[in-house]
Amino acid sequence: MKSNTISLEHGAGGEVMQALIGEIILKNFHNKSAGSIGLECLDDGSTVRLEGFNKGCELVMTTDSHVITPAFFPNTNIGRLAVSGTVNDLTVMGAKPLALTCAVIVPEGFPLKEFEEIIKTMDKTAAEVGVPIITGDTKTMEKTALDSIILNTAGLGITDSPVRDSGLQPGDKILVTGTIGDHGISLMAHREGFDFDTDLASDSAPLWKLIEPLLKLRTPEGEPVITAMKDPTRGGLANALNEMAEKSGAGILIEEDWIPFKPAVSAACEMLGLDPLEVANEGKAVIGVKPGFEDEVLSILRQHPYGRDAAVIGEVTPDKKEVVLRNRFGGMRFVDVPAGDPIPRVC
Amino acid sequence: MKSNTISLEHGAGGEVMQALIGEIILKNFHNKSAGSIGLECLDDGSTVRLEGFNKGCELVMTTDSHVITPAFFPNTNIGRLAVSGTVNDLTVMGAKPLALTCAVIVPEGFPLKEFEEIIKTMDKTAAEVGVPIITGDTKTMEKTALDSIILNTAGLGITDSPVRDSGLQPGDKILVTGTIGDHGISLMAHREGFDFDTDLASDSAPLWKLIEPLLKLRTPEGEPVITAMKDPTRGGLANALNEMAEKSGAGILIEEDWIPFKPAVSAACEMLGLDPLEVANEGKAVIGVKPGFEDEVLSILRQHPYGRDAAVIGEVTPDKKEVVLRNRFGGMRFVDVPAGDPIPRVC
Ligand SMILES: Nc1ncnc2c1ncn2[C@@H]1O[C@H](COP(=O)(O)OP(=O)(O)OP(=O)(O)O)[C@@H](O)[C@H]1O
Ligand SMILES: Nc1ncnc2c1ncn2[C@@H]1O[C@H](COP(=O)(O)OP(=O)(O)OP(=O)(O)O)[C@@H](O)[C@H]1O
Ligand SMILES: [Mg+2]
Ligand SMILES: [Mg+2]
Ligand SMILES: [Mg+2]
Ligand SMILES: [Mg+2]
Ligand SMILES: [Mg+2]
Ligand SMILES: [Mg+2]
Repeated sequence: MKSNTISLEHGAGGEVMQALIGEIILKNFHNKSAGSIGLECLDDGSTVRLEGFNKGCELVMTTDSHVITPAFFPNTNIGRLAVSGTVNDLTVMGAKPLALTCAVIVPEGFPLKEFEEIIKTMDKTAAEVGVPIITGDTKTMEKTALDSIILNTAGLGITDSPVRDSGLQPGDKILVTGTIGDHGISLMAHREGFDFDTDLASDSAPLWKLIEPLLKLRTPEGEPVITAMKDPTRGGLANALNEMAEKSGAGILIEEDWIPFKPAVSAACEMLGLDPLEVANEGKAVIGVKPGFEDEVLSILRQHPYGRDAAVIGEVTPDKKEVVLRNRFGGMRFVDVPAGDPIPRVC
Repeated sequence: MKSNTISLEHGAGGEVMQALIGEIILKNFHNKSAGSIGLECLDDGSTVRLEGFNKGCELVMTTDSHVITPAFFPNTNIGRLAVSGTVNDLTVMGAKPLALTCAVIVPEGFPLKEFEEIIKTMDKTAAEVGVPIITGDTKTMEKTALDSIILNTAGLGITDSPVRDSGLQPGDKILVTGTIGDHGISLMAHREGFDFDTDLASDSAPLWKLIEPLLKLRTPEGEPVITAMKDPTRGGLANALNEMAEKSGAGILIEEDWIPFKPAVSAACEMLGLDPLEVANEGKAVIGVKPGFEDEVLSILRQHPYGRDAAVIGEVTPDKKEVVLRNRFGGMRFVDVPAGDPIPRVC
């Protein structure tokens, strides 16, 4: 930890945040596990095992705060982001969402109409996956103390076979459920005032219904077809792939040309000088799939509106914990862990 | 809703907040229940019923954000407050805490030493009741956008007989587990710079171990001895008693002289012109007890350090949903629902 104070990168989902969590949070929390996956796994959520409950079944808990500004952005608002974010962390743990919480912190002077619009959007987003919002909290702050509305959603889910970040095996195929970079780039374009292209919109979406059918797939040997899963939020695809490779003790080789991008996103990236691999996605999952099953998985994903652009983007390699990108000419480069997402307050 | 924008009172735990929750949140959330106690009960938490789990057992979820300023105050800091607050909402639902989440939002420039101190305090407070902190989230904001650290903790608990706010029956005794007004008044005194009296300190404490033995008590007919329970946080004892009376469809008569106050708190209240019944407590519970069992309950409470000053303060009356305070001369006055806690950002 170089500095003595918090910097924006301490909350930006990359290497700097990981150091903070490793050096301050993991070291000081002594009791941090209630099931097979505890805080120390640093997965998208953790599990809770219940005495006397169906063997093999575990609950999953997760939480995310959302501080995105502006609270309204192309197509939707912070309410959709908050519900989707927590639904997706449960989903990529392999857990069916059972209930959400809704904690709101709002500055004085915030328009009640916008407040209501955000609440309505949360309701609609939760309805897409049928999850109830059962409890919440409302705090206010002086307008000089807080600039925009903040939401926190925690989620409870249930699973009979949790999916970890660390389950990748050499040979597994790496899939993404759709185009990469949409959320972060569209937000940046919106802030800069050139989001006239309707393709530049947040991908924010709750993925449970998209992913649910995959969780039941088994190999002839009875093993889950899905070996690992993560939602590439802050720090983007670059961070998600690195975390999965590192935790799995394997490498990942990605074919640059296979990554799906919206043309508007690629164009905006050039204009803004941003790497679409390092920015947040809010309606996508990265999935490890046992080799030979990728076509079946792809065809299931593509049947759902949120999976239309799903693609195989590479595979797991045996010898290294590194992520390598190969371009169409065969040139290779490492995909580094970003220090942090280059776009501040994107979620 | 008179104004078109959020005011500080919309988050102050009284009548104004209740209107916001009733008119905007309850009306717009369509799916808000996952068990026997849903959001519409507006209790300290809600329940989740699990298929195939022990009959009668339910999970409980709750969440609270903490925006208190300053983050460090006499005796402790926001970390103790956040863990205690969520443990206490589970506790007053009659639920054993199983797991907590830890979401932090921190402004750039916040000292890392203080950040670590807060995390250590969370760890220690959770250890008092043996609850693990299993998952979390860290976001940062510009120092111009947020003035102080914010914590959100969500909690998961389990119970085989949930305790509702609405369970009061005429004749039940009303108990408090200790002195009233400590948290709010000590915070205000600290802000005003006269917290030299060491008795002026926050009561922030996790109450599970104090309350746990009460939950097993049964009448000879097999009914729970504890009929209702609430932690008198924002809006203080005045708000908690009114909510319990209203939801139970009964009245409450309180004997002013029986309410335990620290002399330093009474003195500070006079100086600051504050009503100790309207300010937040962070380590207290209000308990409805079947008549005839109050002495047993008191003696159990007083064995625990957090229950030393426990007292019977009144009883439930049949005919009204109102809360009445009787002074030593027999004079009566209504205890109104406060518009909101008079001290801003106290939790
Ligand atoms: N303040 C905290 N306390 C405890 N654990 C934390 C805290 N912040 C992060 N973590 C843990 O660190 C890991 C990474 O957190 P992170 O928020 O990046 O995950 P995520 O929610 O999947 O990503 P995102 O927040 O970008 O959606 C998770 O396991 C999380 O539980
Ligand atoms: N933003 C929200 N969304 C959904 N429900 C909410 C929201 N804010 C409050 N509630 C609900 O309103 C009720 C009252 O909330 P409140 O926060 O006052 O309870 P509490 O946590 O017991 O008190 P405190 O926050 O002072 O500790 C609870 O049932 C809570 O679930
Ligand atoms: Mg995640
Ligand atoms: Mg997340
Ligand atoms: Mg609350
Ligand atoms: Mg409460
Ligand atoms: Mg509370
Ligand atoms: Mg997170």
